[in-house]
Amino acid sequence: MKLWGGRFSGKLNPAAWALNASLEVDQRLAEQDVRGSQAWARSLTQAGVLTEDENSQIQQGLEQIAGEFADGSFAFQESDEDIHTAVERRLGERIGPAAGNLHTGRSRNDQVATDLRMWLLDQLPRLEAALIELQSALVRRAEADPEVMLPGYTHLQRAQPILLSHWWLAHFWPLQRDRGRLADLADRTAVLPLGSAALAGTPYPVDRAALAAALGFTEASPNSLDAVSDRDFAAEFTFCAALTGVHLSRLAEAVILFASAEFGFFELSDAYATGSSLMPQKKNPDVFELARGQAGRLLGALTGLLSTLKGLPSAYDKDLQEDKRPVFSAYDTLTSVLPVLAGALDTLRVRPERMAAAMDAGLMATDLADTLVELGMPFRLAHALVGKAVQMAAARGITLEALSAADYAALDPDVKALLERAGAGDDELRAVFDPQRSIARRSVFGGTAPQAVAEQLELAKRRLQPLLDESL
Amino acid sequence: MKLWGGRFSGKLNPAAWALNASLEVDQRLAEQDVRGSQAWARSLTQAGVLTEDENSQIQQGLEQIAGEFADGSFAFQESDEDIHTAVERRLGERIGPAAGNLHTGRSRNDQVATDLRMWLLDQLPRLEAALIELQSALVRRAEADPEVMLPGYTHLQRAQPILLSHWWLAHFWPLQRDRGRLADLADRTAVLPLGSAALAGTPYPVDRAALAAALGFTEASPNSLDAVSDRDFAAEFTFCAALTGVHLSRLAEAVILFASAEFGFFELSDAYATGSSLMPQKKNPDVFELARGQAGRLLGALTGLLSTLKGLPSAYDKDLQEDKRPVFSAYDTLTSVLPVLAGALDTLRVRPERMAAAMDAGLMATDLADTLVELGMPFRLAHALVGKAVQMAAARGITLEALSAADYAALDPDVKALLERAGAGDDELRAVFDPQRSIARRSVFGGTAPQAVAEQLELAKRRLQPLLDESL
Amino acid sequence: MKLWGGRFSGKLNPAAWALNASLEVDQRLAEQDVRGSQAWARSLTQAGVLTEDENSQIQQGLEQIAGEFADGSFAFQESDEDIHTAVERRLGERIGPAAGNLHTGRSRNDQVATDLRMWLLDQLPRLEAALIELQSALVRRAEADPEVMLPGYTHLQRAQPILLSHWWLAHFWPLQRDRGRLADLADRTAVLPLGSAALAGTPYPVDRAALAAALGFTEASPNSLDAVSDRDFAAEFTFCAALTGVHLSRLAEAVILFASAEFGFFELSDAYATGSSLMPQKKNPDVFELARGQAGRLLGALTGLLSTLKGLPSAYDKDLQEDKRPVFSAYDTLTSVLPVLAGALDTLRVRPERMAAAMDAGLMATDLADTLVELGMPFRLAHALVGKAVQMAAARGITLEALSAADYAALDPDVKALLERAGAGDDELRAVFDPQRSIARRSVFGGTAPQAVAEQLELAKRRLQPLLDESL
Amino acid sequence: MKLWGGRFSGKLNPAAWALNASLEVDQRLAEQDVRGSQAWARSLTQAGVLTEDENSQIQQGLEQIAGEFADGSFAFQESDEDIHTAVERRLGERIGPAAGNLHTGRSRNDQVATDLRMWLLDQLPRLEAALIELQSALVRRAEADPEVMLPGYTHLQRAQPILLSHWWLAHFWPLQRDRGRLADLADRTAVLPLGSAALAGTPYPVDRAALAAALGFTEASPNSLDAVSDRDFAAEFTFCAALTGVHLSRLAEAVILFASAEFGFFELSDAYATGSSLMPQKKNPDVFELARGQAGRLLGALTGLLSTLKGLPSAYDKDLQEDKRPVFSAYDTLTSVLPVLAGALDTLRVRPERMAAAMDAGLMATDLADTLVELGMPFRLAHALVGKAVQMAAARGITLEALSAADYAALDPDVKALLERAGAGDDELRAVFDPQRSIARRSVFGGTAPQAVAEQLELAKRRLQPLLDESL
Repeated sequence: MKLWGGRFSGKLNPAAWALNASLEVDQRLAEQDVRGSQAWARSLTQAGVLTEDENSQIQQGLEQIAGEFADGSFAFQESDEDIHTAVERRLGERIGPAAGNLHTGRSRNDQVATDLRMWLLDQLPRLEAALIELQSALVRRAEADPEVMLPGYTHLQRAQPILLSHWWLAHFWPLQRDRGRLADLADRTAVLPLGSAALAGTPYPVDRAALAAALGFTEASPNSLDAVSDRDFAAEFTFCAALTGVHLSRLAEAVILFASAEFGFFELSDAYATGSSLMPQKKNPDVFELARGQAGRLLGALTGLLSTLKGLPSAYDKDLQEDKRPVFSAYDTLTSVLPVLAGALDTLRVRPERMAAAMDAGLMATDLADTLVELGMPFRLAHALVGKAVQMAAARGITLEALSAADYAALDPDVKALLERAGAGDDELRAVFDPQRSIARRSVFGGTAPQAVAEQLELAKRRLQPLLDESL
Repeated sequence: MKLWGGRFSGKLNPAAWALNASLEVDQRLAEQDVRGSQAWARSLTQAGVLTEDENSQIQQGLEQIAGEFADGSFAFQESDEDIHTAVERRLGERIGPAAGNLHTGRSRNDQVATDLRMWLLDQLPRLEAALIELQSALVRRAEADPEVMLPGYTHLQRAQPILLSHWWLAHFWPLQRDRGRLADLADRTAVLPLGSAALAGTPYPVDRAALAAALGFTEASPNSLDAVSDRDFAAEFTFCAALTGVHLSRLAEAVILFASAEFGFFELSDAYATGSSLMPQKKNPDVFELARGQAGRLLGALTGLLSTLKGLPSAYDKDLQEDKRPVFSAYDTLTSVLPVLAGALDTLRVRPERMAAAMDAGLMATDLADTLVELGMPFRLAHALVGKAVQMAAARGITLEALSAADYAALDPDVKALLERAGAGDDELRAVFDPQRSIARRSVFGGTAPQAVAEQLELAKRRLQPLLDESL
Repeated sequence: MKLWGGRFSGKLNPAAWALNASLEVDQRLAEQDVRGSQAWARSLTQAGVLTEDENSQIQQGLEQIAGEFADGSFAFQESDEDIHTAVERRLGERIGPAAGNLHTGRSRNDQVATDLRMWLLDQLPRLEAALIELQSALVRRAEADPEVMLPGYTHLQRAQPILLSHWWLAHFWPLQRDRGRLADLADRTAVLPLGSAALAGTPYPVDRAALAAALGFTEASPNSLDAVSDRDFAAEFTFCAALTGVHLSRLAEAVILFASAEFGFFELSDAYATGSSLMPQKKNPDVFELARGQAGRLLGALTGLLSTLKGLPSAYDKDLQEDKRPVFSAYDTLTSVLPVLAGALDTLRVRPERMAAAMDAGLMATDLADTLVELGMPFRLAHALVGKAVQMAAARGITLEALSAADYAALDPDVKALLERAGAGDDELRAVFDPQRSIARRSVFGGTAPQAVAEQLELAKRRLQPLLDESL
Repeated sequence: MKLWGGRFSGKLNPAAWALNASLEVDQRLAEQDVRGSQAWARSLTQAGVLTEDENSQIQQGLEQIAGEFADGSFAFQESDEDIHTAVERRLGERIGPAAGNLHTGRSRNDQVATDLRMWLLDQLPRLEAALIELQSALVRRAEADPEVMLPGYTHLQRAQPILLSHWWLAHFWPLQRDRGRLADLADRTAVLPLGSAALAGTPYPVDRAALAAALGFTEASPNSLDAVSDRDFAAEFTFCAALTGVHLSRLAEAVILFASAEFGFFELSDAYATGSSLMPQKKNPDVFELARGQAGRLLGALTGLLSTLKGLPSAYDKDLQEDKRPVFSAYDTLTSVLPVLAGALDTLRVRPERMAAAMDAGLMATDLADTLVELGMPFRLAHALVGKAVQMAAARGITLEALSAADYAALDPDVKALLERAGAGDDELRAVFDPQRSIARRSVFGGTAPQAVAEQLELAKRRLQPLLDESL
């Protein structure tokens, strides 16, 4: 069955039919399509277009169809062009000619835009739940080892000591921003196209505000032409998903590094690692590599959709049928990978001894410069002097920590004077190389000091509350 | 001058220097860099790190530098690696050794992230103003010709009659959503990284909340590792810009079509059209084609930035230097094209006579089906019957309007009965083909009827108020 | 079954298993996987690793499995991680322990890279055939109406008269370049990874050159590390597909325009047009809109894959599992849309009368300038003068053709002199406005004159020969 | 000056002018534009359109203009819309009215397409030279340390021992493929659009084949409509560049890893490393991070250009002006980064002792399995058994190497029998753990054995010969 064709004398070419048909993809909107049709029939009835009896038949028929979708008994037919056609075809089989009234005053243009928005509004809380699941795992990890230290890296070079808790939480906040974006997106998605008909508005006096409320939307769209062609919500969703993908790829990259033999900071659980078909010793972080690689897939979905939308003239063009595939793909990708990452984080083993072994003296070079600043040297000079000290130590094959006050004094007469004035000798200098001291000094809000991290952790835990209502 | 190098014995290779230097791009952050440094010096002073005297020298020096940037007298040097280096170098020239204290407790990592956020927060209201300028032009056009009708198109086929005002406003709402996205982005951008230092937080007790407020941010970032590596705001901005670009490309495509000889609905003003170097008669809609084409450039900026961010391990990596180019390019692209589009719309000539000539009877086919529905026929049957009527008219080489009640009756015995029952004859049927009647019937909220469009126009005008505060 | 796990004590988490498993996607490589395994077993046998008897068992078992795939009787199991696992599992069921020898000296890393290259080499001729099918339709159209003229457009403004045949062929050559790219790609794809094992090369003395030849490759890969991580061929394929998609989108855009009521140059056959669920009169060019929209999908596949590849360290990373989805999607998209476009072009109706009606005098403005050049005026002045004439005609509400020699003389005293000197009057000027004359003058190679187009058509027909050998 | 405007009464709005003008970008085509114009004037002369005297003036004038570009004395004017206009304006200043004849029979549409192709053909050999420079550096590195071994990685886990030379060469071959793509691209670029005029072909009898030859093209374009709108060569170039960018990003990622403290395999030269403004000890691989990050920029150029091209109707649209920016950006990005990478590789210090320290026994697990295979065990069982041995060793806290024949026998009765039958004891088993032995065994073509790598190196060196002729 197709919902058009009166004016056509020939039959559609089979290959053209196959290209045009979208059921394979849009059958996923079945529940929303039925629910939207029920609300539409009620609106038509309130507007006096359908009789109570017609409405009652339609409601009952659609209810049964909903049941068929729910229990998997709905049988699609080869000839069903799309989900809307399938539902209307089945309704006709169920209730007879009254089914022919359902499509009065609407078009598949406003119908599919409504279905996809409903679907997205239905799924967003589930996606948020999956994000919260991963955030919770990060919080659990941050709580688990409050005292473990490791080198912080910039440019993948050891930079300064940090708390492991702080490191875990660094991956919490991007996901929090992701959730904020989803909440904003939900607000923009909850604008109802239904009642826009093909492009000019329905000619029947349906109450669109009431219809919006009945379907869980906050308002009706203000312009029918825009409403049937607007896919901003889909594009914005694929962007949100792509950026989340980027965040997951960054977390994944970090875990892959830390799980290497060379870093050795993490060991993955057998439950979340895989082996090699050839090399018996291998234990591979495949799930993290997949998370990283699938960020590409998400970026492709975004790019593809925006490119499809570019340059379309106003109102509905069939190109818009390409909206669903990237949206579904983005949703499926994230919701399949997020729980796995959460599980993998929960079960990985932290190896504090390897982290401790990586805490070389160079990590405290900034602290040394800061000490010189406190003794009265401008930072820029202190920085340069410590740079020379690093060079001196390297030339001697010793660590920075092993340099004596005399060594520093030899580097620069000013330092000599400063150290003497302050009465600072080898002990005072060496005290600088305690990573705990370095960490403790970074106690500003957002810093890595234990107290600051504890405060941050509390803040993070308060943010675990969903921003989206599952019953939206 | 460069801000590092104490530990290095060799000199950087010149080609490597050129690759690494970012001054060409980041000099655009000059004003923000100076302002941020002033606030940082004040924070260090309040934290007891700088003396009042040192602070006073620094403030004065930076004020003078700000003046040099403002009047164009600041002289960059070959050896300035980036804007931060240039400012600190110049400060040293101005105030001597005290300049060496400014960088205490901060890093270029938190500094550049702060500068770029400040820059974006400074520009967003300007971008919004440019969007409002185009929206205002659309509103003016929508107000100008309240009664002009034209065919509405789907699939670029004539579909149903609409008001021209409604058509113009269809391009207003996407821009309104764009502005909403920018407002949400501004909220997420107004989180201060400064005080995060290189990655672990500054070791000096600066009051980051006060610093945030002083620089126009709403809060300080909660995690220093995240703060120096977070470019979500940049990615989100390029997305917002790309989606705006898509909207402009759709408007542009529509105007290009309507300005063609074949449509003939619009004539561009000479002030916004260009000619051909070969064909003397040409009058080309170049500015709209550029708007359409540059949507590609904007999409490229988004894709490139997301791809750059993908897979970076935590904290700062130099790859992040690639953040500014796409942000600046996106901003420049939009702010150069938006005013031109506004001007082009304000000055184009609408040709209602060409629109009227395009109002063929087929546009009212849906109304005809609706009439049959009102007479008691299920919509699905009415739709099919009108389809057959279209075919019959085409076969006879006449318009749909020219079919008589008898013709319809001949197509279907049920129609015959319906028409007789309703006492509907040729006159009643032909009344259906009045486009004004068709438009008037679409009076739901968001529909194309005059009253609904007037209501929509009022709503649109109320939305012209900026969402962003220029003095943010 | 999985091909690893000896060293693992725990079981893989089910969600992690699902994420990791790739059978859903890579089962499409079944035929290639079996064929590759057969060749591998032969190579191992020649290298003395397998006995003739083992080989014979393996060959027979694989032959049966190939049969199962061919007749659809192969039963995948839940526990099959990927196609390689499924085949080896089934081989074990068929021939017992000897199956355990097949994977000797190879890895899934070289195996899957080989399978995907084989798959692509198998499909490229099919894709080329689909391209040739569309090119042939364009050639048929170009041959059908050798004398029909229409306006050529630049900036979507009428520019100069052209032959319709020339217009059709303008869409032939991009596809020819696409085929050239596919041929180059095939050469680069025909490099065999098998024998690279996991990353370091197989330790068994297999003859890789012979293996390459046996599997239809032209050479063996020169570096095992590169061979298992190289996905250039996949990226290049998605680029080729994306650019073909761009070409189809441009053809589609043009057909959509020409099929609009306003242009009216084409009418689509009912067999390749679709209707509206609401508007009974609509006849929509959906298949062309889908072709245009799916260019976005193809671009997304390219962008996604390149982004996935970016930044991967050398040798195999699991991210590479994301290679197949974009390759398959690109192939399926093109091979489903190409035949439909060919059919749609073959069946559309050209409306020469509408094209003729669109041939306004302005199209010959360049010819007028050229005439003045021939009379001795520099082109730049002639161009400016004709521009003024266009303005004069527009001001009078007449066409350019209707201006008299006296009008031109009035515009410029030089013209007066020129015309007099040449003895050119109204008749000579008006002769310029014959579009046939305009077209005939453009007789250079590649021009729109009938003879040049005939020559071009012959050239095009000679190029229809496949560049790729189906039996490659 | 602008090259059009006769028909326009109003002046172009200044902002529209600024948007429309492309001089800032296309002035880079100056040399090509002049050269193309010289050839065009010659062609017009041969066709009898220009007199020898006019031609001679034009040639001389253009020669002088070429000189002005070469010595930097050419003065652009505010009013120059693009490079073509600037050149023609200057020619008029130089030679007077005869300049007005130059544009006879051509259009900026065919002119700019020709200029950009010429520019690309001029630059491709330079880009190839830069690629060869990096390949040469890789070859030098591969030659430098023929005996150094390191772990090969898959999934960033230690996998099997390889030669460092083999590792370097793994990054050689992707660049070789890149060069092959550029050569194919050059062939497709060398098709001349000039003579296509605006869209329909020039009406003057110029010999386009001769013109093509004179300008270094291999043939003239066969269809004028296609010729002025074809930007395949630009898109293909941005793809080639993006894929090269991906290759550089992979090399960069690997070097960044190996230069970390944890791997410690490489130490960058001071000439190619940079420091931190805050942390005095840092030595950062910025140039490699930039190479990695700029792969994003290259991907953005590709995506943006393809998206711009999508959906344009045939012949010239102004959107095509967006072609040059991505092409120039891609070229500049690669040619600035390639020599730096070459220099950085040439100067980095390899630390064989760190590589040796990373050669743990697990790397030989596959060799152990292969040994069991040689003893008569099917590979699949051998693989599983070694997996169990890995587990046993880990449980005991010893390396795989430390397990005795008795341990293996205890794991599996079959192994016991096999070992006994072969008379293999602890010594035989431990011999397996010699990485040199492991490497030597992988002697197939493309494998990591010294002889195979030597052969590969010879092959690589033979490939250093340019594929493109600088004098093309």
